[in-house]
Amino acid sequence: MINVGLIGFGYWGPNLARNFHHNPFMELAAISDFSEDRLKTAARFYPQTKLYRQADDIINNNGVDVVAIATPVSTHYQLAKKAFQSGKHVWLEKPMTETVAQSEELIELAARYGKKLQVDHTFVYTGAVRKIHSLIDSGDLGDLIYYDSSRVNLGLFQQDVDVIWDLAPHDIAILDYLMPFKKLAVSATGSDYFGTGMTSKSLLTIFMENNVVAHINVSWVSPVKIRQTLIGGTAKMILYDDLEPSEKIKIYDKGVELDYTKEDLYRINVQYRVGDMWAPKLEDHEALSLEVQHFAECIMQGHEPLTNGHSGLEVVKVLVASQESLSQRGGPVELT
Amino acid sequence: MINVGLIGFGYWGPNLARNFHHNPFMELAAISDFSEDRLKTAARFYPQTKLYRQADDIINNNGVDVVAIATPVSTHYQLAKKAFQSGKHVWLEKPMTETVAQSEELIELAARYGKKLQVDHTFVYTGAVRKIHSLIDSGDLGDLIYYDSSRVNLGLFQQDVDVIWDLAPHDIAILDYLMPFKKLAVSATGSDYFGTGMTSKSLLTIFMENNVVAHINVSWVSPVKIRQTLIGGTAKMILYDDLEPSEKIKIYDKGVELDYTKEDLYRINVQYRVGDMWAPKLEDHEALSLEVQHFAECIMQGHEPLTNGHSGLEVVKVLVASQESLSQRGGPVELT
Amino acid sequence: MINVGLIGFGYWGPNLARNFHHNPFMELAAISDFSEDRLKTAARFYPQTKLYRQADDIINNNGVDVVAIATPVSTHYQLAKKAFQSGKHVWLEKPMTETVAQSEELIELAARYGKKLQVDHTFVYTGAVRKIHSLIDSGDLGDLIYYDSSRVNLGLFQQDVDVIWDLAPHDIAILDYLMPFKKLAVSATGSDYFGTGMTSKSLLTIFMENNVVAHINVSWVSPVKIRQTLIGGTAKMILYDDLEPSEKIKIYDKGVELDYTKEDLYRINVQYRVGDMWAPKLEDHEALSLEVQHFAECIMQGHEPLTNGHSGLEVVKVLVASQESLSQRGGPVELT
Amino acid sequence: MINVGLIGFGYWGPNLARNFHHNPFMELAAISDFSEDRLKTAARFYPQTKLYRQADDIINNNGVDVVAIATPVSTHYQLAKKAFQSGKHVWLEKPMTETVAQSEELIELAARYGKKLQVDHTFVYTGAVRKIHSLIDSGDLGDLIYYDSSRVNLGLFQQDVDVIWDLAPHDIAILDYLMPFKKLAVSATGSDYFGTGMTSKSLLTIFMENNVVAHINVSWVSPVKIRQTLIGGTAKMILYDDLEPSEKIKIYDKGVELDYTKEDLYRINVQYRVGDMWAPKLEDHEALSLEVQHFAECIMQGHEPLTNGHSGLEVVKVLVASQESLSQRGGPVELT
Repeated sequence: MINVGLIGFGYWGPNLARNFHHNPFMELAAISDFSEDRLKTAARFYPQTKLYRQADDIINNNGVDVVAIATPVSTHYQLAKKAFQSGKHVWLEKPMTETVAQSEELIELAARYGKKLQVDHTFVYTGAVRKIHSLIDSGDLGDLIYYDSSRVNLGLFQQDVDVIWDLAPHDIAILDYLMPFKKLAVSATGSDYFGTGMTSKSLLTIFMENNVVAHINVSWVSPVKIRQTLIGGTAKMILYDDLEPSEKIKIYDKGVELDYTKEDLYRINVQYRVGDMWAPKLEDHEALSLEVQHFAECIMQGHEPLTNGHSGLEVVKVLVASQESLSQRGGPVELT
Repeated sequence: MINVGLIGFGYWGPNLARNFHHNPFMELAAISDFSEDRLKTAARFYPQTKLYRQADDIINNNGVDVVAIATPVSTHYQLAKKAFQSGKHVWLEKPMTETVAQSEELIELAARYGKKLQVDHTFVYTGAVRKIHSLIDSGDLGDLIYYDSSRVNLGLFQQDVDVIWDLAPHDIAILDYLMPFKKLAVSATGSDYFGTGMTSKSLLTIFMENNVVAHINVSWVSPVKIRQTLIGGTAKMILYDDLEPSEKIKIYDKGVELDYTKEDLYRINVQYRVGDMWAPKLEDHEALSLEVQHFAECIMQGHEPLTNGHSGLEVVKVLVASQESLSQRGGPVELT
Repeated sequence: MINVGLIGFGYWGPNLARNFHHNPFMELAAISDFSEDRLKTAARFYPQTKLYRQADDIINNNGVDVVAIATPVSTHYQLAKKAFQSGKHVWLEKPMTETVAQSEELIELAARYGKKLQVDHTFVYTGAVRKIHSLIDSGDLGDLIYYDSSRVNLGLFQQDVDVIWDLAPHDIAILDYLMPFKKLAVSATGSDYFGTGMTSKSLLTIFMENNVVAHINVSWVSPVKIRQTLIGGTAKMILYDDLEPSEKIKIYDKGVELDYTKEDLYRINVQYRVGDMWAPKLEDHEALSLEVQHFAECIMQGHEPLTNGHSGLEVVKVLVASQESLSQRGGPVELT
Repeated sequence: MINVGLIGFGYWGPNLARNFHHNPFMELAAISDFSEDRLKTAARFYPQTKLYRQADDIINNNGVDVVAIATPVSTHYQLAKKAFQSGKHVWLEKPMTETVAQSEELIELAARYGKKLQVDHTFVYTGAVRKIHSLIDSGDLGDLIYYDSSRVNLGLFQQDVDVIWDLAPHDIAILDYLMPFKKLAVSATGSDYFGTGMTSKSLLTIFMENNVVAHINVSWVSPVKIRQTLIGGTAKMILYDDLEPSEKIKIYDKGVELDYTKEDLYRINVQYRVGDMWAPKLEDHEALSLEVQHFAECIMQGHEPLTNGHSGLEVVKVLVASQESLSQRGGPVELT
């Protein structure tokens, strides 16, 4: 049995607790939170779990094998570092850390102590994203040309992160999993409409090798909720709509063909092709449950997690570069 | 009766011809096109209209009061200039010209010769955009904070203009009509996926005074057609979906409120408010028909057209700046 | 060249005229209408076509090979009868006649005079319905079990027919083409909400052999327009939504399986199976244009039209039985 | 504190348990179920609740004030009767009983013993249905003319009830709450496609006084899930779509007007009027939670529940009449 100690029982922590609790290979051994109220709630649901006010009581706990960290991003680096030093595996919420150097150090620490590091990019474990991955793998889409996502809704203004740090990690992690091209530069624009110091709406462009481009639109000030991602290939294209109850992904047999045979030798003629649409049945599971199972297996079998520190680092690199580009009103910032 | 001579009977010209023909104050006096086939088609529909191969036969025609120009953008400046010099009013397709200087000169020529210049930004005359304008005018939306539009579909790759020059003029003209803030700078990113020298997908950001920002997403490589515009105010927000058959605009009684009274004096607390949605019945007319009538009235009554040279110039300025920003991968280009 | 004389230039007649005019094998030789205004409109569009006030001038016209009848249903029988007697082929709007006996007589007359009779059930010629037909033909759907259609909207109240005679013929003709089982009985309910003597909303059930049932919901008093048809097979099921711009038909790999192997021998266990969805690209043509071409070929090659008198008669039988059932508040009326 | 004893912890029982448990005025005192497995599950969630194998241990329990019955309909009458005789209040799942006489007897028993009887018609307590009720109450819809509902999906074939007894109670209870006109007769058609003795798809018509008609379409064999109800008034009409995430009800300012002033004195001219659409924000609560609170208040304050025995009886009357009409292929069955 893998004993898990969870730090933080606020917004996302209860979901982690539930999934650790239900996993057959894991035991929810301990939970810490600075709030007495939250600990009372935890006690009601998990009477067998030890409860603490201090995170250190988890980190230094001999009965804990995995430290799961569901606290604000500003605390991620210190807590994870201490957990590795204390000989624990680490489950870390997204985004991984506040700086690139911190993420790099955590990767290095995980390696040094021989422990597993999983960054919780939940969407990578959804049936929809896994299906898209297998479609891309099969070559059906042809050459990939773009990723274009809208992730907008009203509200849930955060006080410690802006809309890019809040919503864009989902898309960057999905992008990194589905289209692992080298990322070259980032351009980001946006506005802090309310003078809070926090951007509440933003457009990101990620320039990648092979002329592939990702466009990401995130917003806290949209009257309607939209979760739509277009993935373009030269042979086929995908619409992934996470709000569709049953047909979350639609594959369009539509593409673009270049015609060099036209009379005008100096011009390439671009033509498009229109065919059927197809919506495959998707696996119906809770993504987080699958992710927890995956992490348990990585620990037991010594494998590397799918969304490990390198995956987390890629996301942080883009976020940090976006922040810089934002202050330059879209001026491109190189990723190195 | 206002006699109209139409230059160009290709993709859009026939729509102009039909609307000039049906307008009670206008007479479709002449059409020119270099294609014999197109002139044959024109003859079938308008047996009473004079047909020419040369544009000059329209421009120098004494029987013509208005020259309507529906030719590629590279020809707009020369044709319109000659038309003014020949003492005609001018109806000009969008985008107005290839350069800012050309647009400025045409505005100056119209003034010098005392003639009307209408740039055909058709969307400004739709029932939906006019309704949004009246809602904004009434103050119902509170302070305007953003414009965010997706105008994507598959195909219709143009050979003389890229996707920005093709699709973005619609949004820039709507923006200019609805939210006439001073435009400060433009950032644009995109990619020429097929090596044709033409960007086929692009993101634009227009920075305006008062911290207002417009985001515009245009694409020729989307498997699905989307025409969605979000307009955000502090009190209410609008979703304008041009593909909806009957409820093209939806007004959401949703907004954002700033709370300065919280215990934490150093932070502004942003809250959102959620209320009803309302979809007003819209006028049901062909926008182009209304636009033609508007131009006829401007000529007869000496008024300035709603989408005159200044409106066309605003669009060209943004397009030209976008082009420059595109080559700098999103680096901001100032508008002066 | 087949010369067509069209009787009636009201609501639907102009669509027929346009399609006869554009068909390469047909000539729109003559039009009659009792309204001077409509004849003026016809003259503007078809200056070469002869125009008459009296239908007899078409029927007795030596220059006419086909009489197309687009007048109220109460006149169909007399006009078509005279047309056959005058040696013409007949194109007849739906519904075919007011009574079963009239339809039977017209079938008999067409046979006696060796002329073709086409009843205009336009939906049978749409790309969507033809595709569904080929899917059913291929056996992919398994055994057909039901047809269920909603055809509702606001308005267009007719004064000479009720909502059943107005809207249900579309569904009955589609049903007859796609699922040609023997029809056994009809149950219809509805209400004349406004005391006009005309039912404005109705539910029809058509009982067919093999336990197959069709349900049809028609209404003139719905605030929203719906055109949705479900077609159920034991192996696959189809959703046909005529208002969808591009994906009008969706094939669901969903079905029902009977399990006789359960412990409880006295019960059949019904299970359902859920798989992918698929939306085929459809032919993109105007249905009426294809139908006109089909009729021209039938005349030239001596074939029987797809929607001939027997097709029209099936529809009339159901309409007449519905009327009787309606007066019995749903009591079943046998079809013989 | 009101002590509740729950009989049946199968499909719906756990939802009741959770809501009784969370209600501040109720105590989930006891649960009975014949399945050892289900009792184990109950023990995990409610360690403080007494568990029994026999329903009688609940009914005869001195520590129980309310008996909640969530068992198959065939057992409702006997269990509820014994509960009243044992001096308990009764919460009864829908449909109330198998026969009209049984429902009538339960109403009589509740009165005789001075106990409350609540039939669980959950939809009546949803924010959407309550909002529609208040709109109708305000008179905004004009005269009500029809109710038309589609409640179809794939699967969940029941073995003890057919699709009418399974799905139609929801609509009949909503109808009874919103449009309490006297019901006169029922016509029902349908088919048992699979030879299981159970109708799996059906159309119901309920004829009511004032010429008002309800149409209800229920199905277990639809490839898509639909939950759409149209409610027509002479002044306004409502579309209630329970699957819409945020805008479940839309009010259309559309209606019908009768024009008696036309030249033709023998005919009433029906005209329609088209205006705005409006989607009110709805209360966001779990309907069952509100319903449980309502029942607690009725017990404490001696009020009659909104969905009491008379509401349950109305539903049973229509179900029983539907069954009879079904066997007559739609022949109308009077409700007395």
